[in-house]
Amino acid sequence: MSTSERIELAVIGRQRPAVVEALGADFVLHDVASLDDVAGSLGPAAERVRGALSNPMIGISAAIMDALPKLEIVTLFGVGLERTDLAAARERGVVVTTTPVLYEDVADTAVVLAMDVSRRITSGDRWLRTGQWAAGGQAVSGKRFSGKRAGILGMGRIGRALAKRLEAFDMQISYYDPRPAPDVAYPLHRSGVELARESDFLFLCAAGGPGVGHVVDAETLAALGPEGVFVNVARGWLVDEPALVDAVTSGAIGGAGLDVFDDEPNVPQALIDADNVVLVPHIASNTVETRSDMDQCVIDNIRSWFSAGSALTPVP
Amino acid sequence: MSTSERIELAVIGRQRPAVVEALGADFVLHDVASLDDVAGSLGPAAERVRGALSNPMIGISAAIMDALPKLEIVTLFGVGLERTDLAAARERGVVVTTTPVLYEDVADTAVVLAMDVSRRITSGDRWLRTGQWAAGGQAVSGKRFSGKRAGILGMGRIGRALAKRLEAFDMQISYYDPRPAPDVAYPLHRSGVELARESDFLFLCAAGGPGVGHVVDAETLAALGPEGVFVNVARGWLVDEPALVDAVTSGAIGGAGLDVFDDEPNVPQALIDADNVVLVPHIASNTVETRSDMDQCVIDNIRSWFSAGSALTPVP
Repeated sequence: MSTSERIELAVIGRQRPAVVEALGADFVLHDVASLDDVAGSLGPAAERVRGALSNPMIGISAAIMDALPKLEIVTLFGVGLERTDLAAARERGVVVTTTPVLYEDVADTAVVLAMDVSRRITSGDRWLRTGQWAAGGQAVSGKRFSGKRAGILGMGRIGRALAKRLEAFDMQISYYDPRPAPDVAYPLHRSGVELARESDFLFLCAAGGPGVGHVVDAETLAALGPEGVFVNVARGWLVDEPALVDAVTSGAIGGAGLDVFDDEPNVPQALIDADNVVLVPHIASNTVETRSDMDQCVIDNIRSWFSAGSALTPVP
Repeated sequence: MSTSERIELAVIGRQRPAVVEALGADFVLHDVASLDDVAGSLGPAAERVRGALSNPMIGISAAIMDALPKLEIVTLFGVGLERTDLAAARERGVVVTTTPVLYEDVADTAVVLAMDVSRRITSGDRWLRTGQWAAGGQAVSGKRFSGKRAGILGMGRIGRALAKRLEAFDMQISYYDPRPAPDVAYPLHRSGVELARESDFLFLCAAGGPGVGHVVDAETLAALGPEGVFVNVARGWLVDEPALVDAVTSGAIGGAGLDVFDDEPNVPQALIDADNVVLVPHIASNTVETRSDMDQCVIDNIRSWFSAGSALTPVP
């Protein structure tokens, strides 16, 4: 096909090289340099673009959709929908797809963060590498993980995959979700605070919709208590981060394992200075295997839409 | 009771304060200052000592038993027997007890070390804390943990507790043990090398008896391969440590999670300098809860022996 016949796509935010390469062979890709001026960024191509590639941390707004009058499909590299205006997409008949292939990795990450904090793995590694064991020091004891009480905030697909894993550690599992899961047998609490009060480990696995606000705040953390460990593999903005910093540094909670932060990639210095936290750079689904599966999911959705007229993993 | 009526115990190596305090109330405790001269360390008390407290990393030799002619019982704070001369103990009618209450914690540690290496948790935490995320860096992707092939070297109580956990991650489990476990359904390989060849994660959970030699050597690590992760929660001396250092630094294996080392607390500098390893200071059973259970197990064994004439957890 000549360039003039090829379908044109807008590339919003950083996309993976494998996706750009694969789709670049069949489509014309246009980088959106400025999210505030999509029409200006794309020039005349804005009138021709029929598909857009984005990610959940940027999403797609009604304003962007307005700038792309021929838009038919938006692919998100991930599963979060809180920065995508689904109502606006529906109104305009724009299909939105996600990459629902990452739940297992995210559940794995929740388990390893919880165990890492309670068993002092990362802090023990730091202590050993700085020579304190060789100098005759005694390692501080961790806390047992197996058999403890696990509270899951958000019993969606990640929460369920997490619960399956925690059962093998003989954890006593309960949960809170504003939409109770009728097929889940674990005890349901009436609020996140009540769940935290009955948990040794509190896992935040909730989806963050627009206007959800803080799912975990100072009251939740106080209820978790000085022996409790908080794990976040959802979104940083679902947590009152200053309250979390206070709780970690004051000993109001025992520790935290955090994959996400309120203003990524910026992490509060008080957390970086704390020994009772494990901090990872939003890597819950960042494995070679899953990123490759996600790449393929984006590629396949675009190809399927423009060849067969249907997306593979559309948001319902 | 007056001191002269109280039963006397030898304290070999560092013992936990709670044990010393509890037993010190009812027994006379004598610290053994020099393992090479127990009789000299204890003076006339050597002739009166009826019990000894030791740990698996020191154990109890025939020479020490010879220096304590009235010895009836030795308690080990842990489960390893490789530095305890069981034959000599049997010959002298000395009962040896362990603390078989730590298997769950050790299995937990094996899981967290494996996940930590493959998902780059500790290295990701280090990368984030040194400001590389905030500076705009892209985190290196980890490897998926769920669904991979797990090889367990040593299918004892720790191996079984580990296998139970790994099943919840949909791992494909197989094992090697010189004494096959008839009640275990996982495929049994003919050697550690064959097991390593068929594994993405190789877990060393073997007990180290005297003269066992290296259970994991350069050939085993070569068979594990450049994508493989090695985890050791058993004993450092069961591994050819220079070969392990070579494998980690050359990329012959993908990484390692190590709780134990050949010459603790000394860890080879090449490991300390490596980013693809997680190094913890022999903490596999070091939780507040389990150490407390182990304390109680030692205390109860001594009390039961000298009040009821039977130990609670003797080595068969």
